[in-house]
Order: sequence, then C-alpha cells, then structure tokens
Amino acid sequence: MPVVPVTSLDDPRLADYAHATDVALKKARGTEHGLYLAESLLVMQRALAAGHVPRSVLALGTSGTEALEALRASGHPDVPVFVGPGELLAELTGYLLHRGLIASMNRPALPTADELLDRTEAQRIVVVENVVDPTNVGAIFRSAGSIGADAVLVTPRCSDPFYRRAIRVSMGTVLQVPWTRTDDWPQLEHTLHARGFEVAALALTPDAVSLREYSPPARVALVLGTEGEGLTPEALAASDVRVQIPMLHGIDSLNVAAASAVAMWAVSG
Amino acid sequence: MPVVPVTSLDDPRLADYAHATDVALKKARGTEHGLYLAESLLVMQRALAAGHVPRSVLALGTSGTEALEALRASGHPDVPVFVGPGELLAELTGYLLHRGLIASMNRPALPTADELLDRTEAQRIVVVENVVDPTNVGAIFRSAGSIGADAVLVTPRCSDPFYRRAIRVSMGTVLQVPWTRTDDWPQLEHTLHARGFEVAALALTPDAVSLREYSPPARVALVLGTEGEGLTPEALAASDVRVQIPMLHGIDSLNVAAASAVAMWAVSG
Repeated sequence: MPVVPVTSLDDPRLADYAHATDVALKKARGTEHGLYLAESLLVMQRALAAGHVPRSVLALGTSGTEALEALRASGHPDVPVFVGPGELLAELTGYLLHRGLIASMNRPALPTADELLDRTEAQRIVVVENVVDPTNVGAIFRSAGSIGADAVLVTPRCSDPFYRRAIRVSMGTVLQVPWTRTDDWPQLEHTLHARGFEVAALALTPDAVSLREYSPPARVALVLGTEGEGLTPEALAASDVRVQIPMLHGIDSLNVAAASAVAMWAVSG
Repeated sequence: MPVVPVTSLDDPRLADYAHATDVALKKARGTEHGLYLAESLLVMQRALAAGHVPRSVLALGTSGTEALEALRASGHPDVPVFVGPGELLAELTGYLLHRGLIASMNRPALPTADELLDRTEAQRIVVVENVVDPTNVGAIFRSAGSIGADAVLVTPRCSDPFYRRAIRVSMGTVLQVPWTRTDDWPQLEHTLHARGFEVAALALTPDAVSLREYSPPARVALVLGTEGEGLTPEALAASDVRVQIPMLHGIDSLNVAAASAVAMWAVSG
C-alpha cells in the first residue's frame, strides 16, 4: 500500500493515534492482546525484528517513505502509512512527532515464565518487582539488557514495558530483551530453584553481603525493587541471598538504572 | 534571627529567588563567586556540612522551623528564613516549593585541580568532558560519588554541577564529592601523569579494551564524555588507554549514569 495522505482526521483507521493513552491502547477493542506505539524508525524496526505485527504508521514527510521501506523489508507491504502535516498530526495525537513517526503495533502474546526460561536457556535473569515508574522500568531494561540479562520478569504491579515512556527510556531494548509478566511472583521462586537459579535480592537488609564479595553460581535471578520502598518482605523471604552495593560518601543509593547496571555487571563477570 | 513572614514581595532580600535562572545566580552582583540554590532540607544540610555559606532561606510552613534549626546547628543563626504562603512564594520563584524550602547559598571558591588532588589524596578520579545536560552531570556525580570517585573534574563546557537540576538529580552528591572545574583539560594529562595516574577514556574506539579485561593501576583517571558525540579527539589522544563496556543484544550503549557507575565499579574493584 502506498503512503496515504492525511487531510482530515475523520479516517477511522487513525483512531489508534487519537489522544491514545497507554492504558487505552493496551485494552483496545478488536485486538487480541492490545496495542502499543513504537516511536521512531529505529524503535519500529526493532519491533518488526522482534516479530511484532504492525497495524499502521503515522509519519511526517520523508519518514513515511522510510517507514514504507522498513515495512516492505519485514514482509508487511500492505500496512498503511499515513503522512500529513505536523500540526494536523499533533492535533490527532496530542503531541508533536519529534521522532518523525509512530507505529501502532499489535502487542504480542506474552509467554509464560516457564516458556521464556526454556526458550532463552537463561543463565542470568532479572526480576523487577513493583517498579511503577515507566522511566525506571525502561532504565532497568536498558541497563540489564545491555550488560547481559538473558531475560527479564516483571511483576503485575510493575509499569508496563510497552508504555511509550518505558520504550523510549529503554532505547527500544524492551523490544529486544526477552521478557514476560509473571503473575505468581514470589511463588515463582520454586520454579527458579527447580531450574537451578540462585535468587539474589538487591537489598539493604542487615544480612546483605557486599556485591564485591558475592560469588554467583552459573544461574542467578537478580531481584530489583523500587528505589524508595525496596523489595517486599515476601520477595526478601523468597531470596537465597541479599546483596548490596557498598556506598561511599554517606550517599543513600544509586539510581535504579545505575544500580541494576552495576549488579548485572558484577554477577555476569 | 527568627523566621521572617513574607507578606509582600517587595523585600529586596528576596531578590535571590525572583525568577532566578541558574546563570543569573552564578553571576549575581555583590557576591564573590555567585550563588546557587539548595532545594530541600537535606540538600541544604549537605551544603552546610560542606562548609558552604548560606545567604537566606525561603520556606513553607514548618519547613521554616527545620531550616532555622539546621542553620543554628551549623553556626549560622543570623541567616534570615523567609516563610510565606505557597502561592505567594510561587509567584516569587516561578515554581512551587515541592521540597518545602530553597536556600540561597554562596558558591564556594573552587580549588585548582592540583589543590583538589592534593587535598583528597585521590586514587580514583572522574574527568567529565563537555557534558552539557545538567541531568547527565547530576547523574554522573550520583553514580561516581556513590561507587567511589575520590574527586571529579569537569571541563568548562560541562553544565555547572551547582545548577538546580544537576544538584537535584545528583541527590545532593555534588555537595559531597570533592570536585572542581579545570580550564586546562586535556593538557591536565601531564599533571595527572606526573602524579602517577593512568588516564583511561571510556570510548568505543576500535582499539578500546573491554572493561572486563582492564586491570587498572593504583591511580586511575576515568574520562567520560557525552552519550552522543563521545570524547573529543584531544581527550582520546591524551588518554593512555581506551576502555569500553561490552554490550549485548546489539544495544548501542548504557545511559551515562549507568555507564559511569559500571566503569567506576570496575576500576574500583
């Protein structure tokens, strides 16, 4: 399908972009698992590379041509690419398309934790518990993904990794790092233990060992919580070991992106 | 001095807070080195603990009493604490006092690089080159400070660590970690070499060694640049070794807070 010029906002196919909140997209009617928005050509390409199925693209000027090429190259030549003037598109979406385009993507079905662990043959995983800030979720994915997590598990109270802000902060790594949402944390510890994982909670408890002294076994599940409240008592109880990053200068803590990066670096060494 | 109620904005002593930009504060007339704003009781306490001299405090409700106690405890009982209704103070400053108070602080004289290195007997330092985003400067201070930098050197084109946003993102660590601005980077390499430092540039050059393989000597100066452009050719030429953090998943890079934390962690091990 060629580029479709947008001259009015009445086209019902534009509804995906009409002041769409992350929550509304996730629950979009007529979709199997909901939708999410991939902003920028790079993020859309990562989504396509991950096998996610596009519905349409909204683009400014020459970004439309680039989008069309990326869609064709990934076997989606019939997906419409709507191109229009910036002001009109901003009226539709409620924000400017700073990155040239946004793509409406079908959310993929998420695997079960077992399927994910089987498929990835994971040795190093990260469990993210109740991190409600999408910026922090995105930052954890970026750090853990680039340093070396084979997979990430998020608990139901975590912000959704497919939210716009999480995707953006993650630099698209939520589309690259294998992950799923697990409903049965911290009971999942039994599954992890049965698979030979040591469950290591990053926490400032009195019994925590220094990350410098921690010698991880071949399989480690690193559990991260919020900067403020920390991990739940249930998560601490389910862990085999508590690990802390020693701090200097009487400084309270690293931010969550930095802490997750350092912890993943240390256990992957 | 007791708390001073603010009922109008005509008091000339309130001028420090009148829609003051960071740049205007830095160049404030009648001050020796300019001013900066410490937001929150905790940040003000850290500034006082660092020996910085307060001019006045602007506070909401009971925060005024806390500020007064902190000032008395640090030997500054005569510094005025202005207390007024939130709306009036917001009219003055241009923003809400989310953290209860802001304190106008005299900027301290910065030491020379030599004085800083002498005073701190630094073994591990960070050189921050041309990082113009105050968020990133603050993040580097938070990471490097908590992981273990003895001192930080910033180049003239770096955003000022005393800017509001940098202080906030750093969680006040710019007031704890010894630092200065150096005008003669990268010529400073000669000083660093004479003091036995190895200059290690975090960079993605073809000759870069993996941070996993890098064995630092006792004294290391870790050089960090911007996420986008990276270090200048002069900085690379002045370095003894280029070091990179190996990335998985084809991911471009860690964010600067995470990268600085991981690099500091690895060279401090």
